Amino acid sequence: MNIYADNAATTKMSKAAIEAMLPYFDQIYGNPSSLHSTGQYAAEALFMARKIIAEILGCDAREITFTSGGSEADNQAIVSAASIGAKKGKKHIISSAIEHHAVLHTLEKLKKQGFEITLLDAHENGIVRPEELAAAIRPDTALVTIMYANNEIGSIQPIAELGKICREKGVIFHTDAVQAVGHVKINVVEDNIDMLSLSAHKFHGPKGIGVLYAKKGIPLTNLIEGGAQERGKRAGTENLPAIMGMAAALKEAVSDIDENTAKLIPLRDRLIEGLLQIPHTVLNGDPKLRLPGNANVCFEGIEGESLLLLLDSKGICASSGSACTSDSLDPSHVLLAIGRPHEVAHGSLRLSLSEENTIEEIDYMIEAIKEVVAYLRNMSPVWRDLQEGKRSYVIQ
Amino acid sequence: MNIYADNAATTKMSKAAIEAMLPYFDQIYGNPSSLHSTGQYAAEALFMARKIIAEILGCDAREITFTSGGSEADNQAIVSAASIGAKKGKKHIISSAIEHHAVLHTLEKLKKQGFEITLLDAHENGIVRPEELAAAIRPDTALVTIMYANNEIGSIQPIAELGKICREKGVIFHTDAVQAVGHVKINVVEDNIDMLSLSAHKFHGPKGIGVLYAKKGIPLTNLIEGGAQERGKRAGTENLPAIMGMAAALKEAVSDIDENTAKLIPLRDRLIEGLLQIPHTVLNGDPKLRLPGNANVCFEGIEGESLLLLLDSKGICASSGSACTSDSLDPSHVLLAIGRPHEVAHGSLRLSLSEENTIEEIDYMIEAIKEVVAYLRNMSPVWRDLQEGKRSYVIQ
Repeated sequence: MNIYADNAATTKMSKAAIEAMLPYFDQIYGNPSSLHSTGQYAAEALFMARKIIAEILGCDAREITFTSGGSEADNQAIVSAASIGAKKGKKHIISSAIEHHAVLHTLEKLKKQGFEITLLDAHENGIVRPEELAAAIRPDTALVTIMYANNEIGSIQPIAELGKICREKGVIFHTDAVQAVGHVKINVVEDNIDMLSLSAHKFHGPKGIGVLYAKKGIPLTNLIEGGAQERGKRAGTENLPAIMGMAAALKEAVSDIDENTAKLIPLRDRLIEGLLQIPHTVLNGDPKLRLPGNANVCFEGIEGESLLLLLDSKGICASSGSACTSDSLDPSHVLLAIGRPHEVAHGSLRLSLSEENTIEEIDYMIEAIKEVVAYLRNMSPVWRDLQEGKRSYVIQ
Repeated sequence: MNIYADNAATTKMSKAAIEAMLPYFDQIYGNPSSLHSTGQYAAEALFMARKIIAEILGCDAREITFTSGGSEADNQAIVSAASIGAKKGKKHIISSAIEHHAVLHTLEKLKKQGFEITLLDAHENGIVRPEELAAAIRPDTALVTIMYANNEIGSIQPIAELGKICREKGVIFHTDAVQAVGHVKINVVEDNIDMLSLSAHKFHGPKGIGVLYAKKGIPLTNLIEGGAQERGKRAGTENLPAIMGMAAALKEAVSDIDENTAKLIPLRDRLIEGLLQIPHTVLNGDPKLRLPGNANVCFEGIEGESLLLLLDSKGICASSGSACTSDSLDPSHVLLAIGRPHEVAHGSLRLSLSEENTIEEIDYMIEAIKEVVAYLRNMSPVWRDLQEGKRSYVIQ
C-alpha cells in the first residue's frame, strides 16, 4: 500500500491541470505584455483564465490579482488593509488564534509598526463565535482576517455570518481560503467577503501560483514593485502556464465538488470513527463543521513525529499538523489554541484525504495506526506512568 | 516566416527544462517540508537543484533563496540591504539611471522612507563608469545596485570592477542579472558580487521562478511572511517543478554558452549592420559590450508602436523596449538616460535573438524592417518636415 493522506500540505496535480499548462511552455510562450501576436495570444489566455476564476468566485475579473501563492496573497491582503486603515487612523486588526503563519507572522510585523492585534478564541471545536467578533470590533478596527477553514484541524468558520458583521460595521473582511477553495462552496458575494486568498496547489493545481481577490474600491499595496503587470499592483512577468493550470484545476474541483464531498465525508467519518476506537484519543476540530477530507486526532502518551515515521514505513503519508512548521519542535499553535495541553498536542496526527483515496485505504490506515500507536505507547515511559496511575490521563 | 526576436521579454522553454519539470507535477509532488517519503523525495530534489544552481553561480547552496522571479528577488535584495544600512544609520543608495523598474520603483519607495538615492549616469553607450561609482560612494552608502546587462539596450556593465570598488569600500553590491544569467559568464566570487537576482524565463526556463543570491552574512528581510521555507526568509510552499525546470535550463544555458555566443554575435552584428544601412538610424548601447543577442536601434521620424504592429503582420515578434512597460505611452527611461531626445526614443526597436534564430531570419528581418520603416516614414508628417528642411535631423 502507498497511501497519500497529506492533501492539506499539497496535492498531486490533476491531469486536466497539467494538460492546461503544457501549451504555454513552448507554444503560447509569449509575454502577455508584448504587443506582438505571440504576446497577445498569451494575453488572451490570461484574460480568459482570470475570467474563469472570477466567475467561480463570484466576482469581477478586475478584482483578481495573481500572486505566487497563498502566503503572498495573505501578506498583500493584510498589508493593504492595514495601510488603508492607517491612513484613517485605524490601527486595530482582529484575527483568530488558529490562523496560518502567513497571517499571524504578518500581523506580528504590523504589531511592531504600532498596530494592535486582537486574536479571537477558536474554542474547543476550533470555531470562532460571531458574537465574539461583533463585540471585538472597535471604531478603529481596520481589518478582520479569519481563515475560511483551518489547515490543521479542518474546522470551517461561519464566514458569511462573520462577513455580514464586518460589512455592517464597515470593516474590511479578509479570509485566508487556501484550504477551503475547491473543497467547499464559496461565493464572495454570498459570503460577504471583501478579500480572499487562495493557492492552486491545494486543489490539484500547480505550486507557485495563487490569487488575491480584492473587492473593487480596496486599493492594494504592492509587495513587489516593478513593471505594470496586474494593474500595477504585482510586478513580474505573469506566470501564465501556472495560471492556466490553476484555472483548469479550479474549474474541475468546483464542478466535482458535490460528488467529491459525497465521497469524502463517509470516508473521513469512517476514518475518524476508527481512530477514536483507540483508547485515550480525541478528535481535534468540530465533528461536523470540518473540511470533507480532514481528520485530526491526538493520541495520549506518544510523539507525533515517531508516529509519522512509522506510518511512512507502512506506506502512509501523513502529517502531525502544518507542513510549513514541520521542522519545529514546538507543538502546533492551533492545538494549543483549542485547549490541548502541550503533552497531548505533541501526539497529533492529521490525515487529509482526497477523492482518490479509497475505503480500503481508510481501513488499512486505521489498522496500521492502531498497531503503531500501541507499539509506541508500549515503549513510552509517559504511557507506563499513565497506566500505573502515576500520572492522570488528560484524554479520557 | 514566423520569427521570435523578443527573447529579452521572455523565452520559449527548452525541452530539457520542460522534461525536468514534468515528474514533479504528479509523481514527486510532495511538499518538501513534509516528513514522509513523498515529501522527502521532493526535499532531496530541492536540495539537488539548489546545489546545481549554486555551483553554476559559484556560491554556496545556503546562499540561494528561491523567489517567484526576478522582480521579487530585486525587491528583496534592495529592501534587505536598505534595512541593514538603516540599522547603522546608512541611508544612501547608489544605482544607475538605466535600471529595470523592479529596481527603480523599489528605490522610489525607499526614497519616501528617507533614503537618498544617487543614480549614476550610463552615458551614451549605456555603461556606468567605475570612477564615477568610486566618487559617488559616501560613508553612509548602504548599497550599490547596478544591473549586469540592460534589458533594453543590452549594454553589459563592468561588474567585476564595480564590485571590487564596493568591496574595498565595504558597501554591499547587488546586481540585477536577470538579462545576463545564462547569456554571459557569471561567477559571484570573480565578479565581486554580494547579491544577485535572476529569473528562469529569460534563459528558456519556466516563468514564475527566480533566485536571490545573498552572500553569507547578509541577512535577508522577508517580503513574504509565513512558514519557515527558505530558512525562514521566504514563506510559501516551494515551487519545486519550476525550481527543477530552472536548474535544468540554467545548466543547459551555461554549458552551451560558448557555442551560443559564437553563433549569436555574428547574427547580431549582421542584423545591426543591416539596420544601420537605413538612413537616420542609430544604434542604442555599446557596439561591443552588449548581450550576444541584443540589437536596439532608433529610427528617426517614426513611432515604435506602428513599427511593431507592421512587423508583426510580417511574422516578426519584436519590441520597442521593455515588455513590462509596453502599455505606457512614455518613451523608454533607458533611451532618455543615454541621451536620446523624446522624439527619437519613440522610434525605437529592440530585437533580442536566441540561438534558435537563423541567418535567413536575420536577412528577412532586415529587409522587412527597411520596407516598413520606409512605408511609415512616407506617411509621417515629421519625416516630411525633416526631408523638406523644416526640422533638423537628430540622427545624422
